[in-house]
Amino acid sequence: MRVALLAHEKFPDDAKTAVGVLRYADFDVAAVLDRDLAGDRVSDHLAGVADAPIVAGMDELDEPVDALLIGIAPIGGGFDESWRPDVRAAIERGADVVAGLHYFLSEDEEFASLAAEHNVDLRDVRKPDEDLTVAEGVSGDVSAEVVLTVGTDCSTGKMTSSIEMMEAATARGEDAAFVPTGQTGIMIADWGHPIDRVVSDFTAGAVEDMIVERGDDHDYLFVEGQGSINPPAYSSVTLGILHGAMPDKLVLTHNVGQEVVHGYEDFALPDLDTVVDLYEDVAAPVHETEVVAGMINTSSIESDEKAREAVEAYSAAIGVPATDPVRFGAEEVLDAIL
Amino acid sequence: MRVALLAHEKFPDDAKTAVGVLRYADFDVAAVLDRDLAGDRVSDHLAGVADAPIVAGMDELDEPVDALLIGIAPIGGGFDESWRPDVRAAIERGADVVAGLHYFLSEDEEFASLAAEHNVDLRDVRKPDEDLTVAEGVSGDVSAEVVLTVGTDCSTGKMTSSIEMMEAATARGEDAAFVPTGQTGIMIADWGHPIDRVVSDFTAGAVEDMIVERGDDHDYLFVEGQGSINPPAYSSVTLGILHGAMPDKLVLTHNVGQEVVHGYEDFALPDLDTVVDLYEDVAAPVHETEVVAGMINTSSIESDEKAREAVEAYSAAIGVPATDPVRFGAEEVLDAIL
Repeated sequence: MRVALLAHEKFPDDAKTAVGVLRYADFDVAAVLDRDLAGDRVSDHLAGVADAPIVAGMDELDEPVDALLIGIAPIGGGFDESWRPDVRAAIERGADVVAGLHYFLSEDEEFASLAAEHNVDLRDVRKPDEDLTVAEGVSGDVSAEVVLTVGTDCSTGKMTSSIEMMEAATARGEDAAFVPTGQTGIMIADWGHPIDRVVSDFTAGAVEDMIVERGDDHDYLFVEGQGSINPPAYSSVTLGILHGAMPDKLVLTHNVGQEVVHGYEDFALPDLDTVVDLYEDVAAPVHETEVVAGMINTSSIESDEKAREAVEAYSAAIGVPATDPVRFGAEEVLDAIL
Repeated sequence: MRVALLAHEKFPDDAKTAVGVLRYADFDVAAVLDRDLAGDRVSDHLAGVADAPIVAGMDELDEPVDALLIGIAPIGGGFDESWRPDVRAAIERGADVVAGLHYFLSEDEEFASLAAEHNVDLRDVRKPDEDLTVAEGVSGDVSAEVVLTVGTDCSTGKMTSSIEMMEAATARGEDAAFVPTGQTGIMIADWGHPIDRVVSDFTAGAVEDMIVERGDDHDYLFVEGQGSINPPAYSSVTLGILHGAMPDKLVLTHNVGQEVVHGYEDFALPDLDTVVDLYEDVAAPVHETEVVAGMINTSSIESDEKAREAVEAYSAAIGVPATDPVRFGAEEVLDAIL
């Protein structure tokens, strides 16, 4: 599938869906749309992924694409009206539009009628199944070892860490699968429930549904965590996943140097060892688990040597092996996990 | 408003909506519908509320009612098809139907068309507002003291305790309000968001919306908690309320003698002091708070003397004053709360 990735004004640091798709999805990326970086190339801003041009809008795309993917996941999941001309242009050019917003493109009157006219699909991957319900408390019964990523905040690399661990385990010959819980992971894996969008009462149940579906087919499930237990806004999603997945092991993700909650700067992050205790303590009544490894995003540090020091400091702070899975690879901590 | 309360096979112990409405709502209850207890009276099963007959179905009701209220809140919130004849009969007799289920009566084809034909309303109080979003993290800024009930499980008396505290504080001359978060509370208070039914990502935001709306109009807000932090199914709702309400004080509710999670008997309740620590620890990164009082449901104990002993044992276990708010009154612990 040939796709364009919309990431206006956010590429690459605040366009985690676009970056995730570039890094892990099996798509041919024709272009990234970012009006602030038009004329640059993806490789000017992001290493280790297939290169592509950055353009100002769909109108500047010379070749046809199968789909336009909305590559930004803003807090609140709203649709930015400045994206409308590109979505309109994509539909008019016969491309499907894939989005992971709380705002459903398929329920937007203009897009819905235009899509019908041009016979294209509007796929809202954050639209949950109708038949979800409360958890039964049975995730602990599956035969797979369940490894969940948790974090000190949202956007700390939980999806990335889970996929990198799954790939590292697979490279070592293990039978491992990735369980997505968010819009980007669902776009990459092409299945999964968008956990932050399900009915609050069904949060754990939707996760359990996925664990039960895949948990006897693999030896390891690497479950993508969401959000964090400590910020004021979306901790309920995090706890629903923690209790719904009943993980045997936790991997704590963190952005190097981050001290306050992203978007909520009045709220300090707790000490790292407090975060470890919080996750283990709140998981325990449902399923005993422990943090066995750490993953730290050191992309803000230029030198590998300084990044290595940051990894070591993080490992010391949380008392378990750690790595930067993108920079140094997840295999560095795999022995602690498998 | 004159109402009938549907509570088939569940009255009174498993019909907490019916009992809550009987105890606290400003309705005239014409009858309770329970096919297992038909011929009995409410007073045969429940003390301290206005009496009413118990009948087998709407067809046995001689007098007209303004509304039929679904008085059962099953785990999962489904509609039991055995209730269909009574809902149909209510509509045909010109009565509105009020429900707090996850299954929306207003979206049931038969009920919707019948309601249109008979010009009655189908009110699904668990249907959330369309315009909710993520929390901003501002509940801590309101002038009211916020008191939240938490629990060792669902159905431990959180709504009852919150209303009893609000009424006791009001009786003492304080300006106190009740903030409902569940279907029964919303039916009683006639406002509020059904927190367990909102989008998982918006759980805290929906609570914050209510705290901000009322928090500068009163000196005390008594917020109804939901669920519990420790069971496998609905802890995400509980944590969303804890982080969204940013309570200054917590009141821990518990059913005397309960040792396992209701409906999930493989899961033991943690020790009471562990539960206290869990709530305080997981609240702390957002808003420091502490458990200042306990409320215990001793309705399974016949003698007042033994119930008093249970209250004292509970108080000793959690290290703060306690009461049974229905049996002994919330005013016993009000000094610890105000």
